[in-house]
Amino acid sequence: MAADSSWVRIVTAQTPTNIAVIKYWGKRDETLILPVNDSISITLDPSHLCTTTTVAVSPSFDQDRMWLNGKEISLSGGRYQNCLREIRARACEVEDKEKGIKIAKKDWEKLHVHAASYNNFPTAAGLASSAAGFACLVFALAKLMNAKESNSELSAIARQGSGSACRSLFGGFVKWVMGKAENGSDSLAVQLVDDKHWDDLVIIIAVVSSRQKETSSTSGMRESVETSLLLHHRAKEIVPKRIMQMEEAIKDRNFESFSQLTCADSNQFHAVCLDTCPPIFYMNDTSHRIISLVEKWNRAEGTPQVAYTFDAGPNAVLIARNRKAATQLLKKLLFYFPPNSDADLDSFVLGDKSLIKDAGIETMKDVEALQPPPEINNTQTFRGDVSYFICTRPGRGPVLLSDESQALLSPENGLPK
Amino acid sequence: MAADSSWVRIVTAQTPTNIAVIKYWGKRDETLILPVNDSISITLDPSHLCTTTTVAVSPSFDQDRMWLNGKEISLSGGRYQNCLREIRARACEVEDKEKGIKIAKKDWEKLHVHAASYNNFPTAAGLASSAAGFACLVFALAKLMNAKESNSELSAIARQGSGSACRSLFGGFVKWVMGKAENGSDSLAVQLVDDKHWDDLVIIIAVVSSRQKETSSTSGMRESVETSLLLHHRAKEIVPKRIMQMEEAIKDRNFESFSQLTCADSNQFHAVCLDTCPPIFYMNDTSHRIISLVEKWNRAEGTPQVAYTFDAGPNAVLIARNRKAATQLLKKLLFYFPPNSDADLDSFVLGDKSLIKDAGIETMKDVEALQPPPEINNTQTFRGDVSYFICTRPGRGPVLLSDESQALLSPENGLPK
Repeated sequence: MAADSSWVRIVTAQTPTNIAVIKYWGKRDETLILPVNDSISITLDPSHLCTTTTVAVSPSFDQDRMWLNGKEISLSGGRYQNCLREIRARACEVEDKEKGIKIAKKDWEKLHVHAASYNNFPTAAGLASSAAGFACLVFALAKLMNAKESNSELSAIARQGSGSACRSLFGGFVKWVMGKAENGSDSLAVQLVDDKHWDDLVIIIAVVSSRQKETSSTSGMRESVETSLLLHHRAKEIVPKRIMQMEEAIKDRNFESFSQLTCADSNQFHAVCLDTCPPIFYMNDTSHRIISLVEKWNRAEGTPQVAYTFDAGPNAVLIARNRKAATQLLKKLLFYFPPNSDADLDSFVLGDKSLIKDAGIETMKDVEALQPPPEINNTQTFRGDVSYFICTRPGRGPVLLSDESQALLSPENGLPK
Repeated sequence: MAADSSWVRIVTAQTPTNIAVIKYWGKRDETLILPVNDSISITLDPSHLCTTTTVAVSPSFDQDRMWLNGKEISLSGGRYQNCLREIRARACEVEDKEKGIKIAKKDWEKLHVHAASYNNFPTAAGLASSAAGFACLVFALAKLMNAKESNSELSAIARQGSGSACRSLFGGFVKWVMGKAENGSDSLAVQLVDDKHWDDLVIIIAVVSSRQKETSSTSGMRESVETSLLLHHRAKEIVPKRIMQMEEAIKDRNFESFSQLTCADSNQFHAVCLDTCPPIFYMNDTSHRIISLVEKWNRAEGTPQVAYTFDAGPNAVLIARNRKAATQLLKKLLFYFPPNSDADLDSFVLGDKSLIKDAGIETMKDVEALQPPPEINNTQTFRGDVSYFICTRPGRGPVLLSDESQALLSPENGLPK
């Protein structure tokens, strides 16, 4: 270590969130976070949904510390400790002559780290912030500590922070292989295809207003494993076939098959939640209405235009086969779920704003003038039942941000800026 | 046949409705209505929920006709035709010297019948009116035609009208044995215990307001059989064990086991509906809130006080272990789901009115003064989300009404009074 203890080494990374299209629900090992089945996800464009994490190391730090969205949080939990321990065990020598930094492999045991993490979307919105968060923390620490592991190897560490985090180590379509090893070493993510492979897809997320306190996915899946008589049948008999079919559909860009599998698997995951004792309800009436809207439209068109999938909450993630379908979908959604009168359009449709422009909607008046979709007789609308929409697409995996102005910790003292 | 063709023979019967505690969902034969698994139900007290049916025969009738709740309906559907054909095949000689009626066995082929049926509860409320209706029609016709079959044998005929109708041929707890025969002859109902066996139980039905058009159970279960990957596992692997456990629980009046099985099986039936493509949602947010209320209360008490079960609609059927639990339940329900301000108490709590008196509630003011249940932090209420409550209990099977003033058809001309 350099004699001068005033240096601070910082690294900033940005990691996407992801949405499973074949769901992860149930652990076979609670501590190592090993799942009962494989899962497959789409990585979402980090321009619209991502976590940025800066990690720092300095001889002047006297303990590991972390800040999440500006507020200091405890690192004492097992999940953080597991990630920190595993990355430290893989740390290598670092030399930065310019800054006068030299860290030997063995020094890492004594050095403390700081981490600051920020989501560019509301944490409370139930958009898998912990997946992007743990993936980003592990990725950034690996770069800070010059760990030589591949992203797949890092994914097995991120997995120990939050299961679905392992799938955020890659862009495009990602498979979390459940693995067989008792120590979890082969339970990791692999990229199926990158984000350029199927770039017709457009994704609209409906963030649904909810008055209910939701069951956390950690306790929910534990209760499902313990009480659902359907979960094990799903994991053993149904998912393995679906994984093969889904890989085929993705490889062939077969939207019909992709859509059928995505919707069926989302519904089956929620069926298992309902089969849990006591039952878990993540979807609400608004979620059900969005499903009905999509199902009716897909049937009216003859070929599926949109797939839907719901995680452990009421928000709908809608995957349109192309931009034209996405534009039509957005208009239908805005007709049924217009904003409360005090909302402005700019904060009601977030993300890729070009989609709403393509839909010919520029003002709230345009929203109010939308006509009922022809495929549905019922023209009742549900004002305020969707809080906002986010328009996005499949995106890339983690990246380092070399521009120090984007760092969340000060390069001088390693504290939040 | 008597030479004088002016005579009319009439028979009036009353048949209860029933609610399954181990659910019937899925047919292995659509025409004969043969199920994929056994089911078990409670017969509900006909004083509160029942169908009354008068059937008539006369040489003066020139076709089979039927009136439902005062409106003539077509008998051309296969389900009515199957019931009529099967009962006619079992008709025997009838002689009524007083009225000068003599019908030989072979005469029944040429004679036409009239039937009038009336539900003492709203047909639209989703309270299994077709179960009570077909059971009553078959039972009344059997008596009219002097068929010698037992109620179990008649249940196999009622089954061909509406599957769950077969369970309305008995009071108390009833099992529909799925049977093995290809012609359905062994797919029939048997009584497990009569309505006196477990008369502590009190039942409260919450009729939930719904804006959604529901999937009929006939088409819903067809789609589940065709598309749900969980249904067959449930039918083959799960239900047979549950049936044995439920029979044991009923025999022993073991409310803890009864309640656990009833709730789990209702949830699993709805899980299978959700696993159907496209998914079927029968429960809505109000149904979910009622489940949460019951689950929280049961946990707070340490032992289950109330079981819940939901059929193909959002209405909750709540089975309380005894009168004390039912009184407490009613107060909790009225607190969370008070009526709209224009409602009067008398039309908001129907059926056994003594329960609401026991709860110390006499006016709408008493309802408004109810205190939030201690086991729930959230004191938000959901005014108007329940249309009304029906208080009832387990009840007896079909009976003949000998008092002609209760007949729905005129003994003079066999037309609706």
